Parts: sequence; structure tokens; C-alpha cells
Amino acid sequence: MNTTEHADSSLKDVSRPEQDLQVLFHPASIALVGIPRGLKPGKVFLMGLLDLGFEGPIYPVHPDAKEVDGLRAYPGLMAIPDAVDLVIVMSPKETVLDVLEDCARKKVKVVIIYTSGFSETDPTGGRQDETRMREIAHRGGFRIVGPNCMGIYSPSSGLAPFPFMPKESGKIAFLTQSGSLMNLFINMCSSKRLFFSHAASCGNSCDVGFPELLEWVMADDDARVVCSYCEGITDMRRFITTLHETAGKKPIIMWKVGRTDAGKKAAASHTGSLAGQHHIWKALFRQFGIIEVTNIEEMLDVVMGFYHLPLKGHGRVAIISGPGGPAVSAADAVEMNGLTLATLRDASVQRLEELLPATGTAKTNPVDVGLGASFDVRYYLDSLDILSEDPNVDAIIILGGGVSLDLNKQYVEGLIRIRKHCDKHIISIAYPGFIQDEDVLLPLYDNDIPVYPTPERALRAYAAIMGFYRFQRSIARDE
Amino acid sequence: MNTTEHADSSLKDVSRPEQDLQVLFHPASIALVGIPRGLKPGKVFLMGLLDLGFEGPIYPVHPDAKEVDGLRAYPGLMAIPDAVDLVIVMSPKETVLDVLEDCARKKVKVVIIYTSGFSETDPTGGRQDETRMREIAHRGGFRIVGPNCMGIYSPSSGLAPFPFMPKESGKIAFLTQSGSLMNLFINMCSSKRLFFSHAASCGNSCDVGFPELLEWVMADDDARVVCSYCEGITDMRRFITTLHETAGKKPIIMWKVGRTDAGKKAAASHTGSLAGQHHIWKALFRQFGIIEVTNIEEMLDVVMGFYHLPLKGHGRVAIISGPGGPAVSAADAVEMNGLTLATLRDASVQRLEELLPATGTAKTNPVDVGLGASFDVRYYLDSLDILSEDPNVDAIIILGGGVSLDLNKQYVEGLIRIRKHCDKHIISIAYPGFIQDEDVLLPLYDNDIPVYPTPERALRAYAAIMGFYRFQRSIARDE
Repeated sequence: MNTTEHADSSLKDVSRPEQDLQVLFHPASIALVGIPRGLKPGKVFLMGLLDLGFEGPIYPVHPDAKEVDGLRAYPGLMAIPDAVDLVIVMSPKETVLDVLEDCARKKVKVVIIYTSGFSETDPTGGRQDETRMREIAHRGGFRIVGPNCMGIYSPSSGLAPFPFMPKESGKIAFLTQSGSLMNLFINMCSSKRLFFSHAASCGNSCDVGFPELLEWVMADDDARVVCSYCEGITDMRRFITTLHETAGKKPIIMWKVGRTDAGKKAAASHTGSLAGQHHIWKALFRQFGIIEVTNIEEMLDVVMGFYHLPLKGHGRVAIISGPGGPAVSAADAVEMNGLTLATLRDASVQRLEELLPATGTAKTNPVDVGLGASFDVRYYLDSLDILSEDPNVDAIIILGGGVSLDLNKQYVEGLIRIRKHCDKHIISIAYPGFIQDEDVLLPLYDNDIPVYPTPERALRAYAAIMGFYRFQRSIARDE
Repeated sequence: MNTTEHADSSLKDVSRPEQDLQVLFHPASIALVGIPRGLKPGKVFLMGLLDLGFEGPIYPVHPDAKEVDGLRAYPGLMAIPDAVDLVIVMSPKETVLDVLEDCARKKVKVVIIYTSGFSETDPTGGRQDETRMREIAHRGGFRIVGPNCMGIYSPSSGLAPFPFMPKESGKIAFLTQSGSLMNLFINMCSSKRLFFSHAASCGNSCDVGFPELLEWVMADDDARVVCSYCEGITDMRRFITTLHETAGKKPIIMWKVGRTDAGKKAAASHTGSLAGQHHIWKALFRQFGIIEVTNIEEMLDVVMGFYHLPLKGHGRVAIISGPGGPAVSAADAVEMNGLTLATLRDASVQRLEELLPATGTAKTNPVDVGLGASFDVRYYLDSLDILSEDPNVDAIIILGGGVSLDLNKQYVEGLIRIRKHCDKHIISIAYPGFIQDEDVLLPLYDNDIPVYPTPERALRAYAAIMGFYRFQRSIARDE
């Protein structure tokens, strides 16, 4: 594997206290160096802090302005009277090294560099600049995230690099080399009531890189699932060590791009990353139980499963559907994803026969409740009740809804009622033509019933979750 | 291959005039035998006809009712004073053969049997009943669609088997063995302004089957793209003959379920279908240029591409994106789908260098317009203008939008303006976090700019379209 370590990787071997990153995610005070006065891209950092209600002091630094957006501004870092934990640098490229010297003098603890135009645009000169940044940081006793990054999202500290990000904390950690994706993915998840403990965008990773961030989130009790978007890893040795030490402790979902020549070139000009050989990455994924995803929808699908479904069972799936076609296709998807279509016990089949109309229905798995269930959702709910008591079933995928808002509410309330006394995984499908209204669906999320648009997507995600559970047990056996 | 022909397939060889199916899609009068009085599933047929404004006479047939929903009802088919083209049968299973005898006496032209409980629940007795149905039809000179089906959707005739289906006609034909899917998929498409010429749900296919319906839609000038959901085909010989005669004439998109043992069993209990070996189906797909899809989202994606994108070009793709991560992933998707990431000509790169900020952007393909484009969408539009003049590019995938409704409208209007004078494929991505409001997006659909949620889904669909175009040219060369 192309480890692409920096020539002076010895600098990286100096062990550093874990508090370095603690203060990155939970700073007491922040300075914004090079903040624009008007509505320009760099302004998103201040907007994010104000929007999330960062409680510590915020110090805008601007060469001329006395004030920015109602906050007193300072001509330079040294002019700030109090201590500064975190500095976010968005000043022009040429000024960055000088700002870092000021950071050293000011004894700041961590620095996020948003400014870009380094190794991603100029592989030689840019990399030299990044080496100098790291040297200054090392000498000055602070750490750097970036350059060419959006930095940190940490809702419990009121820290966000974009406005309109969710204030709620949750149990997902997200590590990403694309700052925009941090914003897009976290907002996409919040609409499904999936929230984050912390997220970090590390850009060109001149100092703090993906492996160290991974170490930190693997040790952080708030993070129960780790998601990541990765273009390439600089310190491959440290990455593999981290994986060795933490494999199976919590799920790591990884969207690794740069899988093709076209993608590798794009990654290099985005964050100066060397993407590596994808077949070697795949071997790593297998060895350490990492769940690979290949697009943002799949990443959402998988993280939603881990968020709501406890790791247990044998992956024996039962399907309940109103429309017959999607039920047949779901049966295919069960087997194609390496899961098992549950064989219902006789008592279940008998009870389904008593419940459902004689024709236009199916009383074996997949259970087809027929068109009448759209007018009387008790067919759905009573079928779910029957399957929830069947010891041959680990997970129930239910695809349905009624023809009116009232029926849909009754359906959702019924799922939640059954969820409460059922020890199986219940997964709901909001199929096109059935409930699409997020307001009606929200109570499902709040009761640990994940919702997918199709059974195919649900089953792919469920298979990933059961795969990780199998990996975790195999690790436990080996120990 | 398991052709699963009926024992008496000789009956099928009797050639029948094409008008048989013409009247099925365009009947002048309709009788509904066994219509329920209350709001029960069978009522959807009448609701569909009233909703779409069927202009001919509708005759409810009910043993007791004098009137159903304001329409005069008749105690039997023979009591109807005028001629009847189409009969829809929803009366109990035991009555169906008698109703068919009445159809013969009444000299009706086509019969749709909604009633279920035949070969799908009782493979032996049910199949015998279906043979008898076909015999009565043959003797009486009419055709049967079903049993266990929803029949026909034909908006230009005011014919729909469900309420709330779109009144607009379009250029997609849909053949499906799942009646519910007809409703769900057509409504899903209409929200993206994709409309249908005709659709047919054929259920157990005792007489008119998938191959004959395919023949008809392949010959129908209104249908430009054919979509299908198929569980199994009874008359495999006729299917292959049809494919031989029509391959490459228009795209056939096929969602073939029953790919696994679990799926095969489910298909058998849904429509009594024998699904066959999937590797043989795959060989058929390759031989006849059929586009295979595996779920409803993929079917929508592919049909949307065919609906809007003329078949031309060499599949050289350029990408324009605001967020950098999705651009890298899109570059991967280009290559993984067998397409080519276009090499921009020097003049394009030079113009992009003049247009875009020096840092935080990329001026080669994929073009990263940077975060600033969210505040000034001209960066997107001017980049699109530059690429639209590049002879090395066949298709442009653009992923973006602005931070306000006004900017989004400006963005959409700009895409349409450029679309009008550009001879390339333009494909828009409504990525999570960018424009999600369908109202803002609708003008794109009306101007032949398809919209996908992710570049990965767009590129998979685009590759399918270019694959069909290649197949079509290979056929033309052989002739």
C-alpha cells in the first residue's frame, strides 16, 4: 500500500496528550482570523457559532474593522486581551504562516485552517508550506486541523462551521475530508432525527489526521457509530494501528472515494490526497469489520440501522406488505443480501389464515395482507402482532399504510405500540405511494423504528448491520 | 429455460387480430360485474373511471342494487340494453366462469378479471379453472386479462383502475404483474412529470400475457419507452419471438423478480408465476438489449433518462459541483459505470481559470466551483456555459444550487436557458442540502433536464441509456 507518509513523519511519532483533541471539540474561547465583513464564504464560521449559541468569547480578527456583526474586532491575535483556545484561520494563503507564528506566541491550543491553495493545488510548494505549518505548531505546542477544511462540529459546545446545523446532540461521529459533506450529511440525517456527537472535516491533514481523529472518536463514549468520508490517509501506519486496537468496538462506516483513476485524480486536486489501491482498502475493510458504503444515501441507510437496531438475532427476516410486487422483490433482496427468509411457525400461518381474506393475500412469508389493508390497517397491525410472537423470526420488514391521514396515524401508532413489547427488529418501509409525510413518520424514529424508502435499501443496510454483529462475535471468540 | 407453457398452448397459437388489444386500451363502454356498494377494494375501479372522466357508458352489475354511486345498476350483463366492449369482473371466485359465459352471450370484446384465488393459491385446481376461462373466451370471441389483476390504465381513454391516477398522457408504457405497482409507480413518476401512454397489469395471465402486451406496446407509436415488472412468463416462445422482431426499436426496462429461491416462491404465491433461472434471463437481457433494473428507484431513474435524453454522443461526462466530496465520488461513478470522464479542451480550462477563484476550486474535470457559488450561482452557470461549448464533452452533470429561494430560481432558470442552445445532455443533481423543493425543480423536467438525487444514481442511469444506444447501433450495423 502507498502509505504516502510525510518525509518527516518522525514529527508525528511524538506522542501527544489526548487533551489536544478534547479542547478542539470543546474550546472555551475562539478567535476568527481573517473574518470577512460582508456575506462571503468565510462568514459561515461566525454564523455557525452564533446560530448554535457558542457560550464562550468569540474574537473576530480583522486588519481594519473595529467591529464585525456586532462583535468587537481586533487587529491581530496578540491584541486580544484574554487567552484563546481555538483559532480559525481564513486569512489569505500568504498570511497563514505568520498567523501561525502569532498562534505560537499567543499560546493557543488548537488551530483550524480554512484557507486553501496548498498541497491540493501545488503538490510540491504546497506540501512544503504544510510541513512548515506543522513545524510551527509543534514548536508552539498547538495542533492544526487543515488546511483546506471546515473544521469541527460539536453541538454540545455550540461549535458549528455552518449556520442552520442541528443543535441536538446524538450518538454518531462523522469524520470527513469534505467540509461541505459535513454540512450536507448532518442536515440530511437530522431530518430523520439522527444526531451527532461530533464531526470533523480534516482537509489536507497537515497535522491532525484521520487516524488520530478516529482514535479519539473510538475512545469517546458519546459516539456509538462512526461514519466517515475519506479520500486518502497520510499516516497509514497509525490508521492500521488504531484499527487493530479498536476493531469491533463500535461500527465504522466508511465511504472511501478515489476507487478509480478518475476518482484518484479528483481526490488529489480536492485535498491533495493519495487515494491508494482500492482492492487493498477492501482487504482492510474485511479484516477490521469496516462497513463500506459508496454514496450518501447508502451511508444514511446504514447509519440509521445502527442508530436504532440493537445488535442481536440471526438475520431471519419476515416481510409484511400490502402491495404484492414489492413483497416478491423484498424476498429476493433478503436472499441476495445473504440474509434468511424466515420460515414461519405453523401457529403463525394458522393465525394469519384466520385473520386475512382467503384470496388476494399470502399467509406465508412474505405475508401479503392484500389491498383491503389500505382501508383497514388492522390487517397490517394484527399480522405484525402475530409475527412479533414467532420465535423463528428476528426482524420484520413492514411495507404499508392507509388511504387517509387518519389511517396512517393509526398505522404508525400501532407499529409503535407493538414495538414496545416486541423483542425483534421492526423496520418500516415508506414506499412510494404510501406515507411520505415526514411529520407522520417522525414518531417512528423516536421509537427506534428505522424507516427506508424501499425494502431493497432496508435489507442492504440490515445485512451490513448483521455483518458487523457477526464480525464482533468472531473477534470476541478469538480473544 | 423453463418455458412453463400451458399444456394446451395450441390455443395460444391461433392468431388473433391486433384490434383485440386496441379495444382493451380504448373501450367505448364498460360493465363492472360484482361491484361492491360500500368502500371496499373492488370500488377502486369505478372510482378510477369517474376520476379520469371515462366518457362512455358505465354499467354497474350487482344482484340487488338498483343504483351504485349514482349510476343505474343492472342485475346481470344480459340486462344491459346496449353493447358492452369491456367487462371488469370482481364478483366472487365461484361466479367467474358463469360471468364469462354471460360475456360470451353478450358478445363483449374484452374482459378484465380482478377476482383472485386461482393458480396463485391453488396451482392445480386454479390452473384448471384458468384453462376453462380461456376456453370460454376463445369460444365466445373475446379476450381475457387476468385473473388476479388490476387491468388497464389508459389516460387518453379515461381508463384507470385506481382513483387519483394522472390524467395526463405521456410516452411511457408500463407492463406489470403487480397491479399495486401500476398505481404506485405511475404516481411516483407523475410527481416528476413523467407520464404514461398505457399500462397493463396482467396478473396470472390466463389468456393475454406479457408477450402479447409487449408486442402491442412495441407497435404503439405513443409508447417511446417500455417499463416492466415481471415475475414469470407463461409463453416464453412468443416472448422471445417478440424480442427478436423488435429488439432495439425502443428501450425495454425490465424489473424481473424471482431471482432467488425465496423470490421464486414468493412469485408463485403472488401470481402463480414460474420465475425461471435468473442467469438465463440475464442472457436474454444481454442478447436483446433489455435494461435490467432491480428496484423501483432504479426503474424511475432509468426511465427518466430515456424520457429526456436523446440517444447520441459517446458518453464523455463532465461534472460541475459546489461541494468537493460529491464531485470526487461522481468521478469514481463515471468510471465504475463504464463511462469516460471527459478531458476538457485547453480553452475550457483557461476560461474556468479566469472565472473561478484561485483556491478552493478545481478547473479540470470534475470542476469544483467552490463554496462561493452557493452565494453567487453565476459561478455554476458560467461554468456550465463554458463546458456546453467544449467539443470533448457529451454530457454535463451539474450538482448545485444557492442558499436562498431566489438564488435557486436563478439557478434553475439559468440551466434552462443554457439547455435551449446546448446540444449536450444536461443532467441536474438535487443533492441532499441543495434544492429539494419539487416546485422549484418542475421547470427542469419540462425542459428535458432530468433530476437525480445523487450523481451515483444519475450516472448509473446514464450508463444504461448509453448502453442501449450502443446496442441499437450494433443492431443497425448488423442489418
